[in-house]
Amino acid sequence: MEIPTDHPRKESLEARQKLVKAYKKGIVAEEGLIAHGRGEAFDYLLGEKTVSQAAEAMRVACKEISKSQTPVLSVNGNTAALVPREIAMLSQLTSIQVEVNLFHHSQKRVRLIINHLENFGAEGVLGMGRDSRIEGLSHDRGMVCREGIYSADTVIVPLEDGDRTEKLKEIGKKVISIDLNPLSRTSRMADISIVDNIMRCLPIIVEILEKENRERCCKIKNHDLPESFDNKENLKVIEEKMRSGIFEDK
Amino acid sequence: MEIPTDHPRKESLEARQKLVKAYKKGIVAEEGLIAHGRGEAFDYLLGEKTVSQAAEAMRVACKEISKSQTPVLSVNGNTAALVPREIAMLSQLTSIQVEVNLFHHSQKRVRLIINHLENFGAEGVLGMGRDSRIEGLSHDRGMVCREGIYSADTVIVPLEDGDRTEKLKEIGKKVISIDLNPLSRTSRMADISIVDNIMRCLPIIVEILEKENRERCCKIKNHDLPESFDNKENLKVIEEKMRSGIFEDK
Repeated sequence: MEIPTDHPRKESLEARQKLVKAYKKGIVAEEGLIAHGRGEAFDYLLGEKTVSQAAEAMRVACKEISKSQTPVLSVNGNTAALVPREIAMLSQLTSIQVEVNLFHHSQKRVRLIINHLENFGAEGVLGMGRDSRIEGLSHDRGMVCREGIYSADTVIVPLEDGDRTEKLKEIGKKVISIDLNPLSRTSRMADISIVDNIMRCLPIIVEILEKENRERCCKIKNHDLPESFDNKENLKVIEEKMRSGIFEDK
Repeated sequence: MEIPTDHPRKESLEARQKLVKAYKKGIVAEEGLIAHGRGEAFDYLLGEKTVSQAAEAMRVACKEISKSQTPVLSVNGNTAALVPREIAMLSQLTSIQVEVNLFHHSQKRVRLIINHLENFGAEGVLGMGRDSRIEGLSHDRGMVCREGIYSADTVIVPLEDGDRTEKLKEIGKKVISIDLNPLSRTSRMADISIVDNIMRCLPIIVEILEKENRERCCKIKNHDLPESFDNKENLKVIEEKMRSGIFEDK
């Protein structure tokens, strides 16, 4: 189906279409479709835009990533379906290691997702040889790659399960979340919580990191960084934004 | 996949799994998966619990059902997937007539849903022979069963489309809605709007009605009924609860 170019919610409808397409290819799980519906509702409450608090969290997150020795981006089906190009760029232009790691795991789906990302130019994507276990997570859900999440100092988790975020924190990882639900356990437990739509925020993160990479030989520009960053306070402000917006006409 | 018994959001994940299973059987539509995600977001804002205003609306609804001559429960794919046992109990223990009536209609899906409900013990489920039309609803969406919704004095609509609720009101039905979104057109147009998760509230409704049935020969106990019930006011309070509840710890 062609989405009319002047439809006021074109991006949102296109995102659905991307997901459904990826679902039919086996990249996205059925549960991923449901999860996306939940994200859409929270995005509505956010006014479907990147609020300033999210932009601030992004800048702080990028600084954290730049300081990290072994940053890893954990990618699931929905993330791969929605922002494959940006994931590929991160793998090419930054020190971020990409690992496909699924809550609803199957080797076949991991393979499909890696192929999908490689088609967009992603390099060195991990996920097939899961050889290490995160303690406290039962079954499949605890398995990760030694060279990836297991050894990471910082893990970026877009659209992640709360239980897994909790365990990553417990084993001492610095966690950066991307999640539209400010009430989720993931948002509440992450060190830096970016409450934004992955399709809006990942291109911005790519741009910031890429710019920092270019400027590294000179000196990292800190001028647009907040003096201090209080993640809990930042989350609270976003929640209040949602709260006051709930009943407004949009 | 086995959902770990100690996962703090086990019920929510199990509901997703139920829906996905039903989707694979052809009972739930793709649109139903996304709609469920939206419901999840509103349930988050509600604190994922039955608020007292919802409990009150349920009690008033049960009284209304008891007074009705021809109450009908309209069942769609998501409802059948999530609470088949409770629907079966209502069909056995109360005077409620169950009719499968789908927004995304197909004869095949109606047949599958009726079979699914019958497997759980449901009796006399209507839906196959749609022979009457509700005026103002185009095409398939207006077709209902004469012995069911068409002749009903009270229609219970869980997870219903706003357009259809509006038409049911226009032709003089008493409408009881079950919908997590207090802002939906269905919630706003129903006579009694239960803002709760169908998986939490339908078991309660079964229990109240079953108890009333047992006590009928004596005298209906009214002691836990509110003096008066103002649906608009009740909905407003729930909206405010959602709004102010966002930042409470759960």
